[in-house]
Amino acid sequence: MYRINANYGKLPGSYLFSTIAKKVAEFEKQNPDRKVIRLGIGDVTQPIAPSIISAMHTAVDEMGLAETFHGYAPDLGYSFLREAIAESDYRQRGADISPDEIFVSDGAKSDSGNIQELFSADCKIAVTDPVYPVYVDSNVMAGRCGDYDAASGKWSDLLYLPTTADNNFVPELPDRECDVIYLCLPNNPTGTTLTRDQLQKWVDFANEKGCLIIYDGAYEAYISEEDVPHTIYECNGAKNCAIEIKSFSKNAGFTGVRLGYTVVPKELKCEGVSLHDMWARRHGTKFNGAPYIIQRAGEAVYSAQGKKELKEQVAYYMENARLIREGLTGMGYDCYGGVNAPYIWMKTPDNMTSWDFFDRLLEGAGVVGTPGSGFGPSGEGYFRLTAFGQRSNTEAAIEAIRKM
Amino acid sequence: MYRINANYGKLPGSYLFSTIAKKVAEFEKQNPDRKVIRLGIGDVTQPIAPSIISAMHTAVDEMGLAETFHGYAPDLGYSFLREAIAESDYRQRGADISPDEIFVSDGAKSDSGNIQELFSADCKIAVTDPVYPVYVDSNVMAGRCGDYDAASGKWSDLLYLPTTADNNFVPELPDRECDVIYLCLPNNPTGTTLTRDQLQKWVDFANEKGCLIIYDGAYEAYISEEDVPHTIYECNGAKNCAIEIKSFSKNAGFTGVRLGYTVVPKELKCEGVSLHDMWARRHGTKFNGAPYIIQRAGEAVYSAQGKKELKEQVAYYMENARLIREGLTGMGYDCYGGVNAPYIWMKTPDNMTSWDFFDRLLEGAGVVGTPGSGFGPSGEGYFRLTAFGQRSNTEAAIEAIRKM
Repeated sequence: MYRINANYGKLPGSYLFSTIAKKVAEFEKQNPDRKVIRLGIGDVTQPIAPSIISAMHTAVDEMGLAETFHGYAPDLGYSFLREAIAESDYRQRGADISPDEIFVSDGAKSDSGNIQELFSADCKIAVTDPVYPVYVDSNVMAGRCGDYDAASGKWSDLLYLPTTADNNFVPELPDRECDVIYLCLPNNPTGTTLTRDQLQKWVDFANEKGCLIIYDGAYEAYISEEDVPHTIYECNGAKNCAIEIKSFSKNAGFTGVRLGYTVVPKELKCEGVSLHDMWARRHGTKFNGAPYIIQRAGEAVYSAQGKKELKEQVAYYMENARLIREGLTGMGYDCYGGVNAPYIWMKTPDNMTSWDFFDRLLEGAGVVGTPGSGFGPSGEGYFRLTAFGQRSNTEAAIEAIRKM
Repeated sequence: MYRINANYGKLPGSYLFSTIAKKVAEFEKQNPDRKVIRLGIGDVTQPIAPSIISAMHTAVDEMGLAETFHGYAPDLGYSFLREAIAESDYRQRGADISPDEIFVSDGAKSDSGNIQELFSADCKIAVTDPVYPVYVDSNVMAGRCGDYDAASGKWSDLLYLPTTADNNFVPELPDRECDVIYLCLPNNPTGTTLTRDQLQKWVDFANEKGCLIIYDGAYEAYISEEDVPHTIYECNGAKNCAIEIKSFSKNAGFTGVRLGYTVVPKELKCEGVSLHDMWARRHGTKFNGAPYIIQRAGEAVYSAQGKKELKEQVAYYMENARLIREGLTGMGYDCYGGVNAPYIWMKTPDNMTSWDFFDRLLEGAGVVGTPGSGFGPSGEGYFRLTAFGQRSNTEAAIEAIRKM
């Protein structure tokens, strides 16, 4: 009799956003005449920029002609895209990353979930808390997190690095042994980030202790402040201790287009074994490349016209972020983030739990956000709102909260 | 100090097709005036059918307008595609599979590689031999195959089920304990298949012994004979013991478009745990859906016009298969497959090894095929040619082999 991977059974309940969807559906059923505004899940609302649409049409036409048809893509991505990424996202920022250190994928969620396969089952994992659930759940499935304690909301073998208003959202370096550290900066869900000097301390720590950093830079395009790094490879020594994962979902609205990439520097070795070679083998064995049409869309992101259009798109969302942040602050709420990231992380009023505030906001204002506790134990007492809505909805949400 | 997954280090050498590519590049460098015809890797050459191109243009336009823009897709795939699949690939064949048992993905290679995550690390794996390398390599990476013995070309903990001319390409049922059995029918690389009655024996065996069958039906569109099943769910009891993986790469030429799906029936349970729920959790955690544009392309595959166009495309490749099979048979080679699959599996002449014949064919005729030994120890002494080339190249290849 075959046996299942018992680690799956350790995962508690349903995924955060499924629970929210169910609660909202129930509310809408009971209040058919109430308008509901969704500022919960981090999905974009602006259409794909014109120059990208044009590039996709061209690529679709190519696929329809024998002379220009493209079959299997190169395992690790087309050169035209890898070169554009290396040039714009790295060399122009002074980070020495070459095209063949870039692995094109179908999205940062896949890469975030799959990257842990490279590590031994007994590696100790550290995450900032609150955190994007994929890092934790994918390691639970691989048996690295021990058991879940419902009372504390914690996994027995996972090292939590609290990141809250108490430490000004600058987590302390780990004080216990750990092997693999996940950092998402600018951060989902808190919307806060670290300066270059602060991140350098993490890189130095990792090199000193022999840790590996998985650096998720999905929200990089939203950075507005000068001293915030756009890639971990701006830090000295990062190529010896860090893998960086990037997304096209938030800078170019590709949540439904699906494209991402991961950088594994050639210098990155563990006892002589190249992680670059391991990830290449993983890609070659369990993945068959991102669609040609989508990789051409990715290339257009880096064209002069594409960059111009996307700068406007990011500015649109960041104006939403400003409206939410200033609106809520003006009402007396404590708000964080929203300056270098499209998320506003607010303290719940009156020491309400995150889920109680979720209910109050839904019932009182018809606004859907995300309970902070869904991102980890240190998220309790916080609440996330996203700036990815349409302007009119965002304004209406703030107005409804004001009247609540 | 973090530690790597040591199983990766057990994988021998490079991927089969990388080795071939290097040999061909070397030959071309030394013989710049010789024409090389590639009938090696199973990549298609015909452009995407007009009705699918048209559907993708429409979907691209939708993505460019706020009113019709699509962000994150439903985790498990859009209903329009899941319903089309359930209707055409299952209900119309008398197989009772519902849309919510279908999980849309970015391709059968990903699903084939990832599906093993659902099983415990100590499950014993069985594969037919020769076999698509992904099944083996993905289980090696998870530590299920033991160690590799270069002399025999075998993994110590893997159960091999020889499938050769000696048993008329009908493998014997396992005579030792095993838990998970991979079957690819019609088969890559042998191009042979089983009848419905023969497959029913495997389903009965799996239900009796408590085994799970991973059924790869990537080449289903090439079936021409009446008594060959188009899905394992045509067999009684298969919903209690089988997961089916399907590709759009070979029936619709999507090798560079990327789309596939996996069926996990709701009945399929292991000691009360639903594998459907487990795969849903895996999808929800480590995958973010196939692109909207590509799912619309998949829907067009099932339209009346799409079906008509693709029937012609499959017929084109099957005429190539006939030309190769009859051409080689006429020259005195022993050939198999090519009737229900786009692969011709030939015995090497004069007891040559697969790689020796690879060299002779490349040097003597400028034709690239795939050495059978690359697919497993029982592939030694065989050679694979694909029918996915262009007609003129296929004809030229046969002519060059004739003159060799």
